[in-house]
Amino acid sequence: MTYNSQAKSLKGEVIKMLEHLGEFERTSYCGEVSASDIGKKVKLAGWVDTTRDHGGVVFTDLRDRTGKIQIVFSPEISEELVEKAKKLKDEYVVAIEGEVRRRPSGTENPKLKTGEVEVYAEKLKILNKSLPLPFPVDDDVKVGEDIRLKYRFLDLRRKKMMDNIIFRHKLYQITRNVFNEEGFIEIETPFLTKSTPEGARDFLVPSRIYPGKFYALPQSPQLFKQILMVAGFDRYYQIARCFRDEDLRADRQPEFTQVDFEMSFVREKDVMNIAEKVLRRLYKELLGIEIGEIPVMSYDEAMSRFGTDRPDTRFGLELKEITDIAEKCSFKVFRMVTENGGIVKAINFKGGATLSRKEIDDLTKFVGIYGAKGLAWIKVTDKGLQSPIVKFFTEGEINEILKRLEAEVGDILFFVADKPDVVNAALSNLRLKLGKMADLIDDSKINVLWIVDFPMFEWNEDENRWEALHHPFTSPKEEDVEKLLEDPGKVRARAYDMVLNGVEVGGGSIRIYREDIQEKVFKVIGLSDEEAKERFGFLLEALKYGAPPHGGMAFGLDRLCAIMRGEESIRDVIAFPKTQRGQCLLTGAPDTVRPEQLEELHIEITKEEEE
Amino acid sequence: MTYNSQAKSLKGEVIKMLEHLGEFERTSYCGEVSASDIGKKVKLAGWVDTTRDHGGVVFTDLRDRTGKIQIVFSPEISEELVEKAKKLKDEYVVAIEGEVRRRPSGTENPKLKTGEVEVYAEKLKILNKSLPLPFPVDDDVKVGEDIRLKYRFLDLRRKKMMDNIIFRHKLYQITRNVFNEEGFIEIETPFLTKSTPEGARDFLVPSRIYPGKFYALPQSPQLFKQILMVAGFDRYYQIARCFRDEDLRADRQPEFTQVDFEMSFVREKDVMNIAEKVLRRLYKELLGIEIGEIPVMSYDEAMSRFGTDRPDTRFGLELKEITDIAEKCSFKVFRMVTENGGIVKAINFKGGATLSRKEIDDLTKFVGIYGAKGLAWIKVTDKGLQSPIVKFFTEGEINEILKRLEAEVGDILFFVADKPDVVNAALSNLRLKLGKMADLIDDSKINVLWIVDFPMFEWNEDENRWEALHHPFTSPKEEDVEKLLEDPGKVRARAYDMVLNGVEVGGGSIRIYREDIQEKVFKVIGLSDEEAKERFGFLLEALKYGAPPHGGMAFGLDRLCAIMRGEESIRDVIAFPKTQRGQCLLTGAPDTVRPEQLEELHIEITKEEEE
Repeated sequence: MTYNSQAKSLKGEVIKMLEHLGEFERTSYCGEVSASDIGKKVKLAGWVDTTRDHGGVVFTDLRDRTGKIQIVFSPEISEELVEKAKKLKDEYVVAIEGEVRRRPSGTENPKLKTGEVEVYAEKLKILNKSLPLPFPVDDDVKVGEDIRLKYRFLDLRRKKMMDNIIFRHKLYQITRNVFNEEGFIEIETPFLTKSTPEGARDFLVPSRIYPGKFYALPQSPQLFKQILMVAGFDRYYQIARCFRDEDLRADRQPEFTQVDFEMSFVREKDVMNIAEKVLRRLYKELLGIEIGEIPVMSYDEAMSRFGTDRPDTRFGLELKEITDIAEKCSFKVFRMVTENGGIVKAINFKGGATLSRKEIDDLTKFVGIYGAKGLAWIKVTDKGLQSPIVKFFTEGEINEILKRLEAEVGDILFFVADKPDVVNAALSNLRLKLGKMADLIDDSKINVLWIVDFPMFEWNEDENRWEALHHPFTSPKEEDVEKLLEDPGKVRARAYDMVLNGVEVGGGSIRIYREDIQEKVFKVIGLSDEEAKERFGFLLEALKYGAPPHGGMAFGLDRLCAIMRGEESIRDVIAFPKTQRGQCLLTGAPDTVRPEQLEELHIEITKEEEE
Repeated sequence: MTYNSQAKSLKGEVIKMLEHLGEFERTSYCGEVSASDIGKKVKLAGWVDTTRDHGGVVFTDLRDRTGKIQIVFSPEISEELVEKAKKLKDEYVVAIEGEVRRRPSGTENPKLKTGEVEVYAEKLKILNKSLPLPFPVDDDVKVGEDIRLKYRFLDLRRKKMMDNIIFRHKLYQITRNVFNEEGFIEIETPFLTKSTPEGARDFLVPSRIYPGKFYALPQSPQLFKQILMVAGFDRYYQIARCFRDEDLRADRQPEFTQVDFEMSFVREKDVMNIAEKVLRRLYKELLGIEIGEIPVMSYDEAMSRFGTDRPDTRFGLELKEITDIAEKCSFKVFRMVTENGGIVKAINFKGGATLSRKEIDDLTKFVGIYGAKGLAWIKVTDKGLQSPIVKFFTEGEINEILKRLEAEVGDILFFVADKPDVVNAALSNLRLKLGKMADLIDDSKINVLWIVDFPMFEWNEDENRWEALHHPFTSPKEEDVEKLLEDPGKVRARAYDMVLNGVEVGGGSIRIYREDIQEKVFKVIGLSDEEAKERFGFLLEALKYGAPPHGGMAFGLDRLCAIMRGEESIRDVIAFPKTQRGQCLLTGAPDTVRPEQLEELHIEITKEEEE
């Protein structure tokens, strides 16, 4: 998409009206003028937020990044000035000079921080013009996000957006303060680096000097920060941009920001301790919230109770396994699943017996998204159980199910039977949906949780090989090292994830620092010695020359900032985000380039987009 | 070049020797143990810097990022411990526990910060091994830079390199402190952006989602920071990575770091004032140096006196123009040049009359690098003038030359006649060379200078068009706006460069904020309306909706850091730099990628490097 300019301009007369800034020296920001300034002369500059002629007196709200203040152009000061002020339109850029006065009694604006005062203008400079805006600079903007992104320079003028970006600025500073106080060294790592395809897809950058070769943009500074530990920096941090060329599901961005750190001579608790310090300070200093003790939960427990490794524990609706009952019952669907290694889990939606057939059908469709082939249910009513499946169970089995799920009159129980990942995916998402439906989630609560004891590997069905659940530089638990080659599925990782309100906001691990163990892990994930050397040779090499025990973590800064600001989308806390399809609607990137540019890079295009 | 692993490993017995970190809790950094700790138990971790068995007692220097301390393994404590300590080799990673004691009188090491004390080890854990190093971890390293870059994890262990990186860390923090105190907002701008070929060559990133389209890596955040001003952020800063795919002359990197800032409602002096604050604070806090008044020199004066817009004014040897004499003299070479619009300038190398013919020949070759076709000279000796050219001048002319150059017995005068840029390039570089030869430059002096009043455009002979000297968003001086279309060569820019010891470390300008003026400047540099819209449409659009007067600047952080650390090369202040040919010798980037990766990006290679 090439940039579609409006071809509208304001010229001629309006241009002639414009003045230079000249010697004008601003004395205050608009939002900071207060009653203590009454009687003082001030010089202000900013944007015309609104302006109206009220019986020959012009009242203009002047806005800058700190807020608004009312300017009065009165014939009492100068007729000429009033005539000039009448020419002002929304979003014109002006500089004014005047006296701060108390507003007449009864005309104060309590909604405005500066609402007690107004400035009687004595001078006015019109510095720049503005076309009528495509949407008003207003917090409850009604236009679609595409228009907002295209006119990002206007969208960012809205108070909410400006406050988001200023909040983010403060978040950077507080984060760095914590790391600096804790003896961390900020170090920049490269952006033009080597493609090591493992994990997400790389963005590539063709080299002009080396025909046929490419740099890759970093998915994270992972290997460089480990190298920095080998170099002896002991404690490193960086607020780093990272890149993943993934299909942009939900709320992802092709470039995102990570608070990245690494430490030497540490165990899990040392790293988690630093992460907690950062999070506590951010909540305390930015929102005035004290975060209490942060519980630690094992991966197995999280999967068992919530069906996910990032549970939102602000509400119940926990999953209960009934596989043991299901495998003995006469309900064929459950029996077949359990005979094939599947499981059956259930949740009790308290008070849900009132759900209609239509509502249950909708929930069945919903769990279908996660691969569940059905959603069995039992309503517990004062007239007994209502359910299409209850007839397949003995009374003893039913009683055991009701007991295990703590079912009472008025409840509805939902069951999913399938392979474990399908059951967990379906029920964990159903749990969230029901939690929202029944308004069980207290949004004022901050729910932070550590998940630990992850499995080291998971089996990749498609590629018929083991895959690292985190990444292949994660250390196995010391007691599991012996099992690495014999029984990879049983090896637990020294990894930890931080979950905030059901969202993974950070994760990390103690890393492998011994060459022999790193080589074994590469072997488990199916890399030949040659492939391992080709891709990660420099890491293996570094591990030969005195690598210290080390570990670290990374926070997703965009996500953390969005959660703290109560924003649904990370795009609202990024100054210039891309769309879900990776476009920058402001600049029109990505775009076509000149043929000479490609020629110099020794590449050609094999397929062009249809316009 | 694929990574050339050594295929050397330490396995078997050595691996068995290794222990886990376990519950070990470091209590101090090595370099921070002092006499005040005498009698205390400490736990330290780090690298074996050196180790020696001295009559059954093992003395080991343990090193971490803070420094070194002597550890004593004595049979007085434990025979077993001594036996274990005898297995230590250089760069092994260990944790020790022991008691701090005062060194016996006469054995103190005044070269070591911790030289008064030593630690009597009671426990030793060998955490990791090391192969013998390819070069010692030593400040005066004797190996070539390629080896240092390949083993960067070892190179960075050297005290000088580690101190450089820690210095750079402090430089970041102080810089941000100044901006934060001055009310600037730190904002991140995108890395995946639009190619706007004007200025340097872009690095491109093929889009997978939009076949045939490309992102470009930013050459600077220029347009985004201007957009942020239009959005009303008022004061923005960022320590930003920038990318230029240029032929890497001298000491350039394809990715480099810039301290970038922009302000609204300002003039030149406001921006320069902030830049000075940053520089003063850095020198004060990092080096304890007070920078005095910073002089301001016009571009014309700098070119006239020094032949360059980044003069090192710590020494004299100024250029004097003698075109007026040359155009009347009978020396054909000078006459021809002046008749073709060329100029003649000269410098007086005080005391240089002793230069040999060979030395003068070498200098002639040297100025040839800059395009000078010859280097005329006159020696002033007590036996009169010696010169091949003096015979072409009248006595009056010679006297005027000698007077203008303040020539005395013992001096040598050098002359270059050519087009102005050749003369200035040749003589400004000759001036630097002679200044170094005669040791005229006081390295202890900090020489800071502002250069202002640059021309707005320069004529590009090859492309037969005007080109922006800085960039096309630089504002012309208000009084020169009228000349924009009629006489672009006469228009001066509202630009300013900061020169530190003869190196341009920063530059910026007041920007164009009016759509009509921006359109005119695009016209001068030969962009059609359509091209301007295609490339910079979003900027032109933003200027229509209330853009405030604004300006800003950027510092080259790598260069500034190198100068402050007294490093010749910026590579020594970058953790992971690239070679002059853009390679990362540590990781082997750029490298070949898998054919599937290119297929997904809809590109193919047209030329492969010959191995």
